[in-house]
Amino acid sequence: MYCRTFDKLTVTKKLGSAEGICYNEHNTAVMTLEVQHMIIAIANQKGGVGKTTTAINLGGNLAQRGRRVLLVDLDPQGNAATCLGIQKQRLEQTVGEVLLGETPIQEAIMPTGRPGFDILPATPDLAGTAVSLAGLMARETRLRQALAVVANQYDFILIDCPPSLDLLTVNGLASANQVVIPLQCEFLALEGLAQLKETIELIRTHLNSTLFIGGVVMTMYDGRANLARQVVEEVRRYFPQRIFNTIIPRNIRLSEAPSHGELIAEYDPQSRGAQAYAALAEELLQREETRR
Amino acid sequence: MYCRTFDKLTVTKKLGSAEGICYNEHNTAVMTLEVQHMIIAIANQKGGVGKTTTAINLGGNLAQRGRRVLLVDLDPQGNAATCLGIQKQRLEQTVGEVLLGETPIQEAIMPTGRPGFDILPATPDLAGTAVSLAGLMARETRLRQALAVVANQYDFILIDCPPSLDLLTVNGLASANQVVIPLQCEFLALEGLAQLKETIELIRTHLNSTLFIGGVVMTMYDGRANLARQVVEEVRRYFPQRIFNTIIPRNIRLSEAPSHGELIAEYDPQSRGAQAYAALAEELLQREETRR
Repeated sequence: MYCRTFDKLTVTKKLGSAEGICYNEHNTAVMTLEVQHMIIAIANQKGGVGKTTTAINLGGNLAQRGRRVLLVDLDPQGNAATCLGIQKQRLEQTVGEVLLGETPIQEAIMPTGRPGFDILPATPDLAGTAVSLAGLMARETRLRQALAVVANQYDFILIDCPPSLDLLTVNGLASANQVVIPLQCEFLALEGLAQLKETIELIRTHLNSTLFIGGVVMTMYDGRANLARQVVEEVRRYFPQRIFNTIIPRNIRLSEAPSHGELIAEYDPQSRGAQAYAALAEELLQREETRR
Repeated sequence: MYCRTFDKLTVTKKLGSAEGICYNEHNTAVMTLEVQHMIIAIANQKGGVGKTTTAINLGGNLAQRGRRVLLVDLDPQGNAATCLGIQKQRLEQTVGEVLLGETPIQEAIMPTGRPGFDILPATPDLAGTAVSLAGLMARETRLRQALAVVANQYDFILIDCPPSLDLLTVNGLASANQVVIPLQCEFLALEGLAQLKETIELIRTHLNSTLFIGGVVMTMYDGRANLARQVVEEVRRYFPQRIFNTIIPRNIRLSEAPSHGELIAEYDPQSRGAQAYAALAEELLQREETRR
């Protein structure tokens, strides 16, 4: 690594514990560098498109491949923890208290019981948190600030955004390096995407200039339906180069797994759903390799 | 300059045009560096302590010494421009439109008619702007974002904050490297300072971790009054190492100059007020030299 040098340099940003430090010839720290970790917001203001299913199964697969993964549940419906088999009674400190600055993030993060796979859980109280948040200082970057403290402990942080474009989703997008958009292979799938893109653009302008759309994951694909194939074609035109090759099929086993508190890879590793999420994790890792 | 290197690096912040860029061995930009400029918020929620007088005369003196200076007027009373002899009718685009994202900052900045000394002016409309601002994305960092575009064109940016701790002052403090606090040498001078320090602390936590209190400037000092000397002693105890040696005297010429649209250095260069502000500028520059 080499640097173009300048006469006068200053630290541009003070980072959390994930920092490296550069010094000038007087041994004065002139800048700090962040060790790389990928933070992915899984967002789509439409409900029922597979955000949580994608978040938990992508997270689980990345952890199985030896990556250190944190799943952040930003959805007041807060079922990511339940889907992972964590009993609601065990949830004491959650993402809501972290956003309000009432609890250090380290105290709210809990293990999912799978090696290298942690969760920052949510409860329905998060809806109230979103209201309180509106009046606070730095209301859009509270999650980013909290994640900075633990980010160096993870390779991937996946943020399961709520089905809305509210302050919670804004916090998710403001924290992320990239957005992954799950899209159901159904009529009107693209509906609302213009609005999501607009929100992403606003966030790029005001809060997080390096945020990019990592890709669109087509979910609930039924190969027998002509419509599904047409939707995929349409999305390819709308997001050229951005659609993941892996398409998640409509698969009964995928919808059963959460009620057993299991990942699809645990519930039925041979199912088409399990194979699809394994392929998606593989594709994401390959994309990351290429980007570096 | 040398860098401790790391395996994996990422850009931690995308900067405006004031940037330098570092590349890794694959010729990929891995980080950006800001060329140094000092942004000083002149703040105290008490009115009538000499904020505007300090802002314009410190700015004028720094410009006279060959520094490129921008004065940002954040006070809805908006008299910095008038004090500099700029007619109100000439003000078309102001800081209010910039904060709302309606005008690029370059179009609102105007020359003060003095070499190297520009102003981003305000009008009373700014009070309404503050209300509109409250509902916008990144409401606290709008000024910082705008200043990033022009910051490399200046050595010093001075922000004249309003006499309150509202969203405008928060924007000023979130944009600044340091705060300079003018303090009147009078009874109850320290009143309210705890609250200002608290706000600064909140901003350091949530918005601007490298913000520091550059110093306290004692203003309107009357050497004949025992009280004034006592106040200075008290402030020295409260802000050890932080008080400027230069003390601005109570000086009739200082209060006359603005009504002539002149800096004290133009109106009466031999006055004690003019000498004091020249000394303050000198002291500030020396402090900056030491800090580097």
